Amino acid sequence: MGRVTERRKVIRIRDGAVSTRPDTLVAEEPLEIRLNGKPLAITMRTPGDDFALAAGFLVSEGVLGAADELQNIVYCAGATVDGSNTYNIVDVRTAPGVVIPDITLERNVYTTSSCGLCGKASLDAVRTTARWSIDDTAGDTAPPVRLEPELLASLPDRLRAAQRVFDRTGGLHAAALFTEDGELVDIREDVGRHNAVDKLVGRALQNGSLPLSRTVLLVSGRASFELAQKAVMAGIPFLAAVSAPSSLAVDLAAESNLTLVGFLRGTSMNVYAGEHRIALRAAASQG
Amino acid sequence: MGRVTERRKVIRIRDGAVSTRPDTLVAEEPLEIRLNGKPLAITMRTPGDDFALAAGFLVSEGVLGAADELQNIVYCAGATVDGSNTYNIVDVRTAPGVVIPDITLERNVYTTSSCGLCGKASLDAVRTTARWSIDDTAGDTAPPVRLEPELLASLPDRLRAAQRVFDRTGGLHAAALFTEDGELVDIREDVGRHNAVDKLVGRALQNGSLPLSRTVLLVSGRASFELAQKAVMAGIPFLAAVSAPSSLAVDLAAESNLTLVGFLRGTSMNVYAGEHRIALRAAASQG
Repeated sequence: MGRVTERRKVIRIRDGAVSTRPDTLVAEEPLEIRLNGKPLAITMRTPGDDFALAAGFLVSEGVLGAADELQNIVYCAGATVDGSNTYNIVDVRTAPGVVIPDITLERNVYTTSSCGLCGKASLDAVRTTARWSIDDTAGDTAPPVRLEPELLASLPDRLRAAQRVFDRTGGLHAAALFTEDGELVDIREDVGRHNAVDKLVGRALQNGSLPLSRTVLLVSGRASFELAQKAVMAGIPFLAAVSAPSSLAVDLAAESNLTLVGFLRGTSMNVYAGEHRIALRAAASQG
Repeated sequence: MGRVTERRKVIRIRDGAVSTRPDTLVAEEPLEIRLNGKPLAITMRTPGDDFALAAGFLVSEGVLGAADELQNIVYCAGATVDGSNTYNIVDVRTAPGVVIPDITLERNVYTTSSCGLCGKASLDAVRTTARWSIDDTAGDTAPPVRLEPELLASLPDRLRAAQRVFDRTGGLHAAALFTEDGELVDIREDVGRHNAVDKLVGRALQNGSLPLSRTVLLVSGRASFELAQKAVMAGIPFLAAVSAPSSLAVDLAAESNLTLVGFLRGTSMNVYAGEHRIALRAAASQG
């Protein structure tokens, strides 16, 4: 549909000099996600990969876990006066027999009537809805995922090199999946960082590759609870972020056996949880 | 409550050297906003300024426009098994006689049954719910807000200097209000950029200073539709962002008489809408 970017006039001011020119901007449009015909959520997203975004969103929410649970995804027409298709509403149909969990979805946060609303409740909700425990030993036949710090340090440059739309607009978040050997598996860009991750996870579901038990998820910005939640729900054992994590993201990682690395810049990084997946050579000293 | 930051253990890797130390992280917790007792929205936020956040959220949604429409805001206890207060649920009571608009709130996006879901519908929703047109001439007695590019260029450094929590955690978005003379009025920080703006606007409501018709809103990151919407709903005539805007943010600014500046870095900036509020000395040349 070619709506990933749009052109607008811009007045550029550079050291006092003024010029007018067309500029390329990242496109932003609302997407309504319906589940078996029922509206479930609306997200502001960059158009493109909408089916993957919807599928990945439903993985994050514990609704979908395998390709055969998905019957189909379609764009809905008919929600407009003249019946035209805005390509901004998708309906996800689950396969016969798939049980839809009873979920209250608002900004991807679960509420539980039993313990009020708190960080603990958010952690509990992930634990009770996760399809898989994070398990990167594949039935005891494979060693756990373990990366050298030098390999980790090389990933942000690989992400950046693959960020095509960012180069044109400067306006997108990116999320990328890497193998444990540092090979780029997939990269998605979006105005919303959570959407970029949902698009990655949704494509993995469609490809039949969930859980993503031997991959590293790298995000271009901060590591929020929501992003850590999405990693856990997709079975990803390793989340690395270029910027800072939040307290609740660290708590979820520690509870879920998720490795969480933040401030991955140059040859430096901070490891907040799951350090057994990083090949540390020097003995850790108490600072 | 002192929960703006939290301490966690971190393993730091710097050029191969490994050390363990406590690290300060930005706190993230869910906040449920209730309106007259009815749950309306949940947002992941940095605790603190919760009443301002709730009030500002309701300004953005067109529910509140003046301090006297607000009866009170309280933390709800009782949503937990033992009745203890998590300080994560606030109830906003409106004053008698305040009419609550019929709003569908999901990720701050309105749906209209008449025209489906599209960017146009999002723009229409802002126009129909806005309390004020952006009007910085104050009944024709004051000249429109008009800033020198040099003054604008100085604002990011002033924002940065005032970002106290960012300095400790590196993990927050910031939003700041400035006068047209570049004086800092207020600054708020949060894990969510929309929350930081809501906190600013909510404080302004509580102070009786809405609409914010002679101020400049500066945000530390990108300018999304949602942030432009919040500026318009608070009557702010000038939105400046350190990073890129989205297409829909530019469209809303152009339609709403909002000045939108992006990529405000050093002595450079891009003006996407409302250039009459910037004192351009050189003639604009067609690039």
